[in-house]
Amino acid sequence: MTAPRPPRPPRVRVHNFAVSLDGVGAGRNQTLERPFGDPDPSLLMSWAGATDSWPNRTEPGGSRGLDDHIVRDFTHNIGAEIMGRNKFGPVRGPWPDEDWKGWWGDDPPFRTPVFVLTHHPRPSFSLSDTTFHFLDAAPRDALAVALEAAGGKDVRIGGGVSTVRQFLDADLIDEMHVAVAPHQFGDGLRLWDSPTELEDRFRHESVPSPSGVVHHFFWR
Amino acid sequence: MTAPRPPRPPRVRVHNFAVSLDGVGAGRNQTLERPFGDPDPSLLMSWAGATDSWPNRTEPGGSRGLDDHIVRDFTHNIGAEIMGRNKFGPVRGPWPDEDWKGWWGDDPPFRTPVFVLTHHPRPSFSLSDTTFHFLDAAPRDALAVALEAAGGKDVRIGGGVSTVRQFLDADLIDEMHVAVAPHQFGDGLRLWDSPTELEDRFRHESVPSPSGVVHHFFWR
Repeated sequence: MTAPRPPRPPRVRVHNFAVSLDGVGAGRNQTLERPFGDPDPSLLMSWAGATDSWPNRTEPGGSRGLDDHIVRDFTHNIGAEIMGRNKFGPVRGPWPDEDWKGWWGDDPPFRTPVFVLTHHPRPSFSLSDTTFHFLDAAPRDALAVALEAAGGKDVRIGGGVSTVRQFLDADLIDEMHVAVAPHQFGDGLRLWDSPTELEDRFRHESVPSPSGVVHHFFWR
Repeated sequence: MTAPRPPRPPRVRVHNFAVSLDGVGAGRNQTLERPFGDPDPSLLMSWAGATDSWPNRTEPGGSRGLDDHIVRDFTHNIGAEIMGRNKFGPVRGPWPDEDWKGWWGDDPPFRTPVFVLTHHPRPSFSLSDTTFHFLDAAPRDALAVALEAAGGKDVRIGGGVSTVRQFLDADLIDEMHVAVAPHQFGDGLRLWDSPTELEDRFRHESVPSPSGVVHHFFWR
C-alpha cells in the first residue's frame, strides 16, 4: 500500500528558451517585421519548429525524438506565464490604442493567464483559452500574482532575455531549460556569458541533441 | 490570424520502456518478490527512479534534467494503457480469487483505464483514478477497445516485453521510447537484438543521457 504522493509546491520555470552559442537570446531594434530584432535570431528556434509538437505547425511530418519531447513539455503543469512587454509586442511607451494583441493570432499557445510586465498597464483581454493581464510590478510582486492565478501549478517565465535575467537576478527561478543553438550572434541581448556561471546556484546538465542544439537543464 | 490546430489522430505509444544493452526487458521466473524475474532487471529502471517525477518517489531531491523530462512525459496525452498479464502480476492460469490487484498499491500511477490482456478475464475494478479491465483479445481488437476508452487521446502499450513485441509484430505501434541501461543480462525476455532492426519501419534517434542510459526514440 502506498499513500498518494502529496502535490509538490509550485515552481517557477523557464522552458524552451533559446540562445546563441555566445548567449544572445534576442537582437536589438525589434520591429513588427522582426520580432526577435536585428541580427535576426529566429534561427534560435528552428529546432523547435521542426518538431511535431510545435504549436504553429500546420503540416504533418515533424520530428518526434528528443527535441519533440522537450517542446511538448512546454505546457506541462503550467498554470500561468509571466512575460516582458518586449515579448508581447514591438510597441514601446504608452499604448497608442489597444489594437495590439500579441504575435500569436486568435489562438495563442499559452492557454493560461499570461501576465505582461509593463509600466503602462491596460485592460485585460482574452483570446481563445489565453487571458492577457498587464502588470506594473517588480518580479517578486508579479510572481505572487501569477502564483495565485496558477492555482497550485507552476509559473513559466516566458522571456524575453531581460525578463529572464530580472527573475534570475532576483533569485526567483527554480528550474530552467535553455536550448543553445549552433550560431554565433556577437551583438544582441545576452542571457549569459556561459551557462556554467549559474552553477553556483543550480544543478546543471547539458545534453546535445541530434538536431544540433544543446539542451541545458538547471534545477535547485 | 491562425486557425486553431486540429487535434491530431490518437497514437499508439510505448513510453519509458527499459531494456539491457543486450535487449533484455524482463527476466524469467517472475515471482511476487521478483516482479521483473531472474536475473533481476530492476536495475533497468534505476535511471527513472532517480528523477523528481518518478511516481513512487517519496523523498525530495530527484534529478530534473533530461531523464526527468522523459519520465514526466509518461502521462502526456495518454487516455488508456494496454498491458500484458505478466506486467499486471505473477499469477498464471485461472485466477484462484480476485485478491491480486496489481503491484501498485492503492494509487496506481496510470490514472486512466488499463486493459490487461489475459485468457482468463475477471471483473473490472478501480483503485483511485485507475480502472483495470481484463480482455481476452488479439492486439488489434484490444487496441480498438482501448482507443474507444481513450476518448481521442493516445494509447500506451505498457509492456511487458511479450506484449510490446506482439504489438510491434502486428505493426500497431506509432511511437516508442526505450531506455537502454548500461548492463548486460544475457538471459531473459528480449525486445530486440539491436534497436537498428526497427529502422526499416521507424525513424530512429538515440540520445545518451548523463545518467548512463541511452534514450531511443522511434516514430513513423
